[in-house]
Amino acid sequence: MSEQVRFLLDESELPTHWYNIVADLPTPPPPPLHPGTHQPVGPDDLAALFPPELIAQEVSAQRYIEIPEPVREVYRQYRPSPLVRARRWERALGTRARIYYKYEGVSPAGSHKTNTSVPQVYYNSLHGTTRLTTETGAGQWGTALAYACSLFGLECEVWQVGASFDGKPQRRTLIEVFGGTVHRSPSTLTEFGRTLAQDHPGSLGIAISEAVEVAAGDPATKYALGSVLNHVLLHQTVIGEEALKQLALAGEDGADLVIGCAGGGSNLAGLTFPFLREKLAGTSSPRLLAVEPASCPSLTRGEYRYDFGDTGGMTPLMKMYTLGHDFVPSPIHAGGLRYHAMAPLVSHVVAEGLLEATALAQSECFDAALQFARTEGIVPAPESAHALAQARREADAGGEQVIVVGLSGHGLLELGAYHSYLTGGLSDDPLSDEALATALAGVVTL
Amino acid sequence: MSEQVRFLLDESELPTHWYNIVADLPTPPPPPLHPGTHQPVGPDDLAALFPPELIAQEVSAQRYIEIPEPVREVYRQYRPSPLVRARRWERALGTRARIYYKYEGVSPAGSHKTNTSVPQVYYNSLHGTTRLTTETGAGQWGTALAYACSLFGLECEVWQVGASFDGKPQRRTLIEVFGGTVHRSPSTLTEFGRTLAQDHPGSLGIAISEAVEVAAGDPATKYALGSVLNHVLLHQTVIGEEALKQLALAGEDGADLVIGCAGGGSNLAGLTFPFLREKLAGTSSPRLLAVEPASCPSLTRGEYRYDFGDTGGMTPLMKMYTLGHDFVPSPIHAGGLRYHAMAPLVSHVVAEGLLEATALAQSECFDAALQFARTEGIVPAPESAHALAQARREADAGGEQVIVVGLSGHGLLELGAYHSYLTGGLSDDPLSDEALATALAGVVTL
Repeated sequence: MSEQVRFLLDESELPTHWYNIVADLPTPPPPPLHPGTHQPVGPDDLAALFPPELIAQEVSAQRYIEIPEPVREVYRQYRPSPLVRARRWERALGTRARIYYKYEGVSPAGSHKTNTSVPQVYYNSLHGTTRLTTETGAGQWGTALAYACSLFGLECEVWQVGASFDGKPQRRTLIEVFGGTVHRSPSTLTEFGRTLAQDHPGSLGIAISEAVEVAAGDPATKYALGSVLNHVLLHQTVIGEEALKQLALAGEDGADLVIGCAGGGSNLAGLTFPFLREKLAGTSSPRLLAVEPASCPSLTRGEYRYDFGDTGGMTPLMKMYTLGHDFVPSPIHAGGLRYHAMAPLVSHVVAEGLLEATALAQSECFDAALQFARTEGIVPAPESAHALAQARREADAGGEQVIVVGLSGHGLLELGAYHSYLTGGLSDDPLSDEALATALAGVVTL
Repeated sequence: MSEQVRFLLDESELPTHWYNIVADLPTPPPPPLHPGTHQPVGPDDLAALFPPELIAQEVSAQRYIEIPEPVREVYRQYRPSPLVRARRWERALGTRARIYYKYEGVSPAGSHKTNTSVPQVYYNSLHGTTRLTTETGAGQWGTALAYACSLFGLECEVWQVGASFDGKPQRRTLIEVFGGTVHRSPSTLTEFGRTLAQDHPGSLGIAISEAVEVAAGDPATKYALGSVLNHVLLHQTVIGEEALKQLALAGEDGADLVIGCAGGGSNLAGLTFPFLREKLAGTSSPRLLAVEPASCPSLTRGEYRYDFGDTGGMTPLMKMYTLGHDFVPSPIHAGGLRYHAMAPLVSHVVAEGLLEATALAQSECFDAALQFARTEGIVPAPESAHALAQARREADAGGEQVIVVGLSGHGLLELGAYHSYLTGGLSDDPLSDEALATALAGVVTL
């Protein structure tokens, strides 16, 4: 076995197409429904928010969708991203497992989010959009959209979840460095925001409502979502496509286990869906595993039913594992992964038994992250730490398995959370049964 | 011309040797002198602070020194680092110059500093050292040493310049994530620190005195320096060696201009000395250019004479361009590059006319950094921004030249300084003639 550490692909091996899992699913995913009529939404219903290419991708059943050259040109600034054999971490764990991590922290925004912000902004730029609005939680997505907007000359306006805005001024600065504007959500800039107390800690659902409201009110302004929707998951499949090639380069026959963290589900889907294609084709049979926070456990404790994508009830109804669109995660929860539901496509494959899910408390995740940083030299995003902590559990189980972990981003803008952990100020944050019941009571009954 | 953006080398092309410029210099550099006797120091004088291999490297005239395999093993986690063609920035500048940047921000510490922290800790680990002490300014070096210590199981104790310690708690947390301990300098832990007011903003010279004092007082504790000394510059030459290979890969005949920022001089030397070797051999003739801050302009306004490396006068006397070892940079100065003098080897090649130097005010540097971030997607360290700002000036001069810029690190832990710049709170900071005269008056006369 070679001592090689990083498995790099040449620019010429950058994927030319995104992979659409819908083409290969045994059963079609349930359609989104219009909130008024409860009938499946058509392209026209989405035209106020998205450009035509993204709407087409949202409903496409085509297996491969070509990546436009201007998008690939930006991808080439940081992609193909490295697949790294975690040799030092393996040694520290004393495991026989071979652990590889696919590292998306090399992107301009420090996470996988740029994979979709760039095509979203590009397509908008073709149709006269001059401004994009969006929400952001921990801030990875807002950063990625601001960067993409700076490349294509669009304005970028970000509603950031209040608790994150207050606690992490560096993130706001980074978005501003890339030319974006940041508002604390809830804000007084929207009708929906004004219905809420201005010291409300906020939630992704609330921030989405605000960003959607502003976009819907101005023809030159569109909205961009950082996760959940089919076209967003589609754009992230470059991660898994590259990882498959890189595993082969490392001399592996494929993976036994592929682990990703899951908030809205885009990083998880991007990594695992190309592996799921191979599995559905019978080429290989890796276990695919989603790891979510115990404080926001949509897949493991939510209900699989139709719910809104936002708190204000402005989006279509989507069939998802949901905690209820009113759900607000505990303020103790330090990382991202705080969306009230899970991407419809991810929810569907979990419901079909094609992908497993588990939830972890945050202190275990930070413990794994610290060990990883001290061996591999990368400070993981708290989100990615969930995948690492689960990989550590699985590696403990022994055996010579090949584990691929999605390291979706670095945590250099989350050092406040690390400080809390190091100084004993970070307690665990499981969701209580009462809080879950209250949040689920708000879900619309069809 | 290919549209390729990143020029990556395979792990197998990682340099096997460091390059020692001393072997090729037309005249030998002046020796360091014992502070008491004013005679050249011998290896014994350094034995209290450094392990034998580093002392041997410090005085070596051997052209190539082999990189030990355990060091190469760590290098492989992030090296060879990328050489990137700045295509988007070139377009924004409207220049005909081809600009490449050698990006060291991919390292665990986010800067070139790991290139020397790893060998320094490795050699110490061979001789029973259980603890290393050091100074840090902006924090890049403290982070790099803490990471290297975590790999080889040594304790790491860092004295951080007071002003940086107070203003940048994230940097302290990052050092702690890597297992290090951070003290605000001046501290009450040392005799020298106790002679100073505890609210003193500190300086690198003061922090060095404190770290040296602690190391000298305990046989199992040694001291590690992040710049200035010959062995530190030696370790950094992997940067330039890789860049030369990567330029060839990019189809270039060599560089017309190589630009690096300069504080203590190690990043600059690491990038330029391999190019200087080619120049001295007559193979090519690039201009080599050091850029320093107008607030700490040792090369452009200092005097070339013997001075101490620290404020307390505990180190040997070295012939350097110096502002005086009592020099404290203006608190307005936001970035690193705040050492009172310049590495003896860099000073020597400047004095010999082999390397040019210039100084820039910080607002121009932040302006260039912002433009670079919005096009290339990397937020530069304020230090590296000096090299970028000068590259922009040179590119403006027109012509089809090939410019190589040292992008020594990312600025994700310096967003406070970017915030000041974005909100108009960052004024320029040139050193006044009076302050310079006062500082120089403290230099010892031989």
